[in-house]
Amino acid sequence: MSEVMDALPGIEQIRAAATRIAPHAWVTPVMRSPVLDTLSGAVLHFKCEHLQRGGAFKFRGACNAVWALSDAQAAHGVVTHSSGNHGNALALAAATRGIAAHVVVPEGAVRAKVEAIERAGAILHRCAPNQTAREAKAAEVQQATGAVLVHPYADTRVMAGQGTLALELLQQAPGLDALIIPVGGGGLASGVAIAAHATDPGLTLFGAEPQGADDAARSLASGQRVTSVVPETVCDGLRALIGVTNLDALRQHHVQLITVSDEETIAAMQLIWAELKQVVEVSSATVLAAILKQPERFAGRRIGVIISGGNVDLQALPW
Amino acid sequence: MSEVMDALPGIEQIRAAATRIAPHAWVTPVMRSPVLDTLSGAVLHFKCEHLQRGGAFKFRGACNAVWALSDAQAAHGVVTHSSGNHGNALALAAATRGIAAHVVVPEGAVRAKVEAIERAGAILHRCAPNQTAREAKAAEVQQATGAVLVHPYADTRVMAGQGTLALELLQQAPGLDALIIPVGGGGLASGVAIAAHATDPGLTLFGAEPQGADDAARSLASGQRVTSVVPETVCDGLRALIGVTNLDALRQHHVQLITVSDEETIAAMQLIWAELKQVVEVSSATVLAAILKQPERFAGRRIGVIISGGNVDLQALPW
Repeated sequence: MSEVMDALPGIEQIRAAATRIAPHAWVTPVMRSPVLDTLSGAVLHFKCEHLQRGGAFKFRGACNAVWALSDAQAAHGVVTHSSGNHGNALALAAATRGIAAHVVVPEGAVRAKVEAIERAGAILHRCAPNQTAREAKAAEVQQATGAVLVHPYADTRVMAGQGTLALELLQQAPGLDALIIPVGGGGLASGVAIAAHATDPGLTLFGAEPQGADDAARSLASGQRVTSVVPETVCDGLRALIGVTNLDALRQHHVQLITVSDEETIAAMQLIWAELKQVVEVSSATVLAAILKQPERFAGRRIGVIISGGNVDLQALPW
Repeated sequence: MSEVMDALPGIEQIRAAATRIAPHAWVTPVMRSPVLDTLSGAVLHFKCEHLQRGGAFKFRGACNAVWALSDAQAAHGVVTHSSGNHGNALALAAATRGIAAHVVVPEGAVRAKVEAIERAGAILHRCAPNQTAREAKAAEVQQATGAVLVHPYADTRVMAGQGTLALELLQQAPGLDALIIPVGGGGLASGVAIAAHATDPGLTLFGAEPQGADDAARSLASGQRVTSVVPETVCDGLRALIGVTNLDALRQHHVQLITVSDEETIAAMQLIWAELKQVVEVSSATVLAAILKQPERFAGRRIGVIISGGNVDLQALPW
């Protein structure tokens, strides 16, 4: 990955992304719940990206990347490696432009997500379930086809696309005091942090990370990027290691990480299903779990809670 | 139940109900799904009453009944018998007026629903799980307390309240060709039929009923009210026998019933969860099951699909 390709986007790039994806992406609603407000002691505004096209925020970044290509680049298609939502999003985004999408899928990925990627029309390439195998297979496809690599998070265009979510949320729910964002590879967190602070520098930013994949929290705490964490969490969308520039964004924007156990996340997931009546995937529930774990940090404040996705295998619920 | 109390409401009463409940009830969204449109061959507009206060359309009728009382009547509180959503709705509605709610709950009612009724502040009264026991216990409470009975469906005020849903939907999604409504006791179906045809006499009206509680379908087919059906269906919200005047409304408004098996309903429920990402209860899925069962009756038409509730026991999903 060249330095240029994964540089952090500026607010102008995020605004341009918002214009670029507007014809294709959906404006997702913001939901409230009196019961969850009472339970948390905070005023929660849930940004429902599980209702985004493809069932996750990932469509924003993928769509921006696909439509940012020149016609000559686009002709060869796009390729990525993804355990699920980004692959699906890239396939859907490629379809809006009528170009090929190659998706490298690690063995063991959530069945419902892989099926969705196939339905979206992608060409699947299987690989072993580790970062090295994923990147090697993607490079191989890239060589063979000339397709443009669209990395799930370490990609300027992708981060800019994810950042559009914050522009939308802050317009829908003015006067928020803080945002809380799930942290995996950091594409969402970095895009949102940049867009949020460009709009309102006073916003406090929190990130929620599974304890079993807490490389970002360790990296921020130790001052250097920790890459030794072997992810072990039910949050399949948050297993990626934080990207280098993504970590820079977390630092620059003083994103405060809260780590949560899988048990806490699963309990929060059930609360969201029962109270908001929304089918969200387990990774999406880390944010509510974090709020309920450290309520004193959120008490009485207006919080934007980013629900990242809703692609769930209904036959294999985690409780 | 006197003739006056369960007379069918006119459109003026439904419009008055809309004004009366507006400060308390929520305007629920209408959702779309390209995937479900493709699957059904129709253009589906899902009216999301599972996002209504209390998680079901029942709040509309209960709220109208509670606020239609004189201060003198209200002082004694309200009472009802309900296997779930209506009891919860009445408790919530009574709380908006600061009056007591007595709820008769049959043994074997869905645990999540009974817990919600308790949380809403109602005084619970248990009884055997049959219509006779429910009515007897409610009459007993009524005698003892002077509380006003608010029947779940054979009540003019309740039907008028449920009808407000149709006024709202037809404003949100103009140009619908047909509506499809789940049919249990018929409070929702009758209120919606009256409001819908007062707004647009050209609307085709469909009702969806579980095969295991198909007394309304049998009653319409045979020309007289069938009361011999012993309900046996997973659709706990649709086990009630159709009310006398409710049945009249179905006849007068030419509501066409489609019966569906529990298996078909459960499959439709999973589709709604997976595609709309909405937690709806099994009774709510009868309507999509009916559309998918007889697609030729809906093909190419714009359909208002009424999702009645979302109060689910997440520990006991029907698949």
